[in-house]
Amino acid sequence: MSEMRWDPLKNIWVAVADKRGRGPKDFFLERQKLTTTACPFCYGQESKTPAEIFALRPDGSLPNQPGWRVRVVPNKYPMLGIEGELGQRGEGLYDAMNGIGAHEVIIETPDHDRSTADLSTTELADVLHAVQTRLIDLRRDQRFSCILPFKSHGVEAGATIPHAYLQILALPIIPPEVRATLVSSQSYFARKERCLLCDILAQEITDGRRIVRNDGEFLAFAPYASRRPFEIMIAPQRHSHDFAQLDHSGLARLAETLGDLLRRQRQVLRDPAYNFVLYSAPLPHRRPGKPHYWSSLAYDYHWHIELAPHLARPIGLEWGTGFYCNPTAPEEAAAFLRDAPLNLPS
Amino acid sequence: MSEMRWDPLKNIWVAVADKRGRGPKDFFLERQKLTTTACPFCYGQESKTPAEIFALRPDGSLPNQPGWRVRVVPNKYPMLGIEGELGQRGEGLYDAMNGIGAHEVIIETPDHDRSTADLSTTELADVLHAVQTRLIDLRRDQRFSCILPFKSHGVEAGATIPHAYLQILALPIIPPEVRATLVSSQSYFARKERCLLCDILAQEITDGRRIVRNDGEFLAFAPYASRRPFEIMIAPQRHSHDFAQLDHSGLARLAETLGDLLRRQRQVLRDPAYNFVLYSAPLPHRRPGKPHYWSSLAYDYHWHIELAPHLARPIGLEWGTGFYCNPTAPEEAAAFLRDAPLNLPS
Repeated sequence: MSEMRWDPLKNIWVAVADKRGRGPKDFFLERQKLTTTACPFCYGQESKTPAEIFALRPDGSLPNQPGWRVRVVPNKYPMLGIEGELGQRGEGLYDAMNGIGAHEVIIETPDHDRSTADLSTTELADVLHAVQTRLIDLRRDQRFSCILPFKSHGVEAGATIPHAYLQILALPIIPPEVRATLVSSQSYFARKERCLLCDILAQEITDGRRIVRNDGEFLAFAPYASRRPFEIMIAPQRHSHDFAQLDHSGLARLAETLGDLLRRQRQVLRDPAYNFVLYSAPLPHRRPGKPHYWSSLAYDYHWHIELAPHLARPIGLEWGTGFYCNPTAPEEAAAFLRDAPLNLPS
Repeated sequence: MSEMRWDPLKNIWVAVADKRGRGPKDFFLERQKLTTTACPFCYGQESKTPAEIFALRPDGSLPNQPGWRVRVVPNKYPMLGIEGELGQRGEGLYDAMNGIGAHEVIIETPDHDRSTADLSTTELADVLHAVQTRLIDLRRDQRFSCILPFKSHGVEAGATIPHAYLQILALPIIPPEVRATLVSSQSYFARKERCLLCDILAQEITDGRRIVRNDGEFLAFAPYASRRPFEIMIAPQRHSHDFAQLDHSGLARLAETLGDLLRRQRQVLRDPAYNFVLYSAPLPHRRPGKPHYWSSLAYDYHWHIELAPHLARPIGLEWGTGFYCNPTAPEEAAAFLRDAPLNLPS
């Protein structure tokens, strides 16, 4: 049976298994495989993507040529277009604006056969540095209110190419769950002069049952009201609204934690399809012509990563209601991930 | 490319293809098949389910025996348990209550090989009558705030047994998207003294481009800000907050529209996996001991059905953000469904 649990960040109730629910073995599914011929993300195929926006490559090497370690290009099939004005308008009861946004691809490694979980800490820190660089550049654009770097691994999670890549989507609106978390954080701060997620992290550290990894800087834990089995949040323990302000050594520490969690997840759940999303301060107060973009960042927000594998069948009610029933207690999920026997390079 | 569109009911922005996007042929996917041995929903297998709560069966026939036309039983593996108190409590920053609810199964037909789309109008009206009966009974229970009848057809939509069945889930909370629609409806009514969905229906009828079927009583249309390709809303044109108040002839008219839409969807999209959910007035003001349950129904709500097939791959960002990118313009989806050549019995 289940327990109903309330998530103070998203302000939702979730039904969560309250005792031994489904474990890893119940989720060893047959997975669809991705294949490519002449992968556009490999060395020598640079002309198959739009021209690169940013790359980490040796000094003096040419753009759109091999030699890069991490390469950022526009998505060839973007969901939103970069050119034009927002053109906001009413249509009777409805509202519309042009589909303006940025949709970029961060190719994580030139090596076709290595997944994100295979990257070394240095390599993954390079990828995160590329994310920071693009985040800082994209939020100079006054049209964008929310910039979301995210990962899709496996067909079920939305990946279309087997080569390891992240995506980054800059949106002219703040999506509903991001807004819910922002509103919760702002209203908590307004009442208490404290950050909601800071207080959650403190409570999780005291409790301990849901922690997977704590290196003193980053906490990786299974959220109390996890909507999906084996869902994980990674957050900095020192308050920061802005992932872009994480320094070089912070990026390396984050890469250690993220890489470790991806390897635990892969080992315990046998390379599941998964997504993660990096949530940094959204930009709720953008107005055309406002000169200084920093002033529009939401300081009450606490940046974090949400990671979740695609394991459970839908109940058929999630979409349209937002109601989730999680068959695995977060305390159980955390224990499985914590106890994973890891003998892989980090 | 896309257009950003705002849905005034759910208060969300969606990216929607703004010209010829993906059509039915882009969605002809290989689908997983369900099989059973000794189906628990067939005649003669009644002892394999928990004892029946309600059935439509000939006068004088015995419960839990063959002869029924529609049969309602508790779910053998319920997500929430019917016994006990809510036991609401805080856990530091979090909140919890016991996983109290009802989880029932409505077996739509004794015939193992017929899907909902195969049912006659009379048969489908019987199913909807059973839904009404259970809705009225379940909301007498002061512990429940939202009662959601829903359908899962196909593995990808969450079905676990191939025999046609609906489920009904009574929850002690109001899920976030139901609450968003309730809040939008209440705030619109408070300002305008009019129902939001009534006004949406009027605008859709004037516009016409998104209508699939209009019999003068029910309108079936592709919502302006559809999150999924080929998403459909069915709503009564005369304002009503409460599906349970639909009379006998109304049920028959609804069965006609719903059956017609399911057959159009099956024909155009080649029997896709799908869900529909019936949204009737939630019960936001329940308090233990309140004597008369009618007083807690939300009158500003307008009941409706949301139907959507499972077609598009995820982009990897929906879960966690609530941001959707719909590759098919609702105007296109409506045209495909409207023009479906139907030569099936209704």
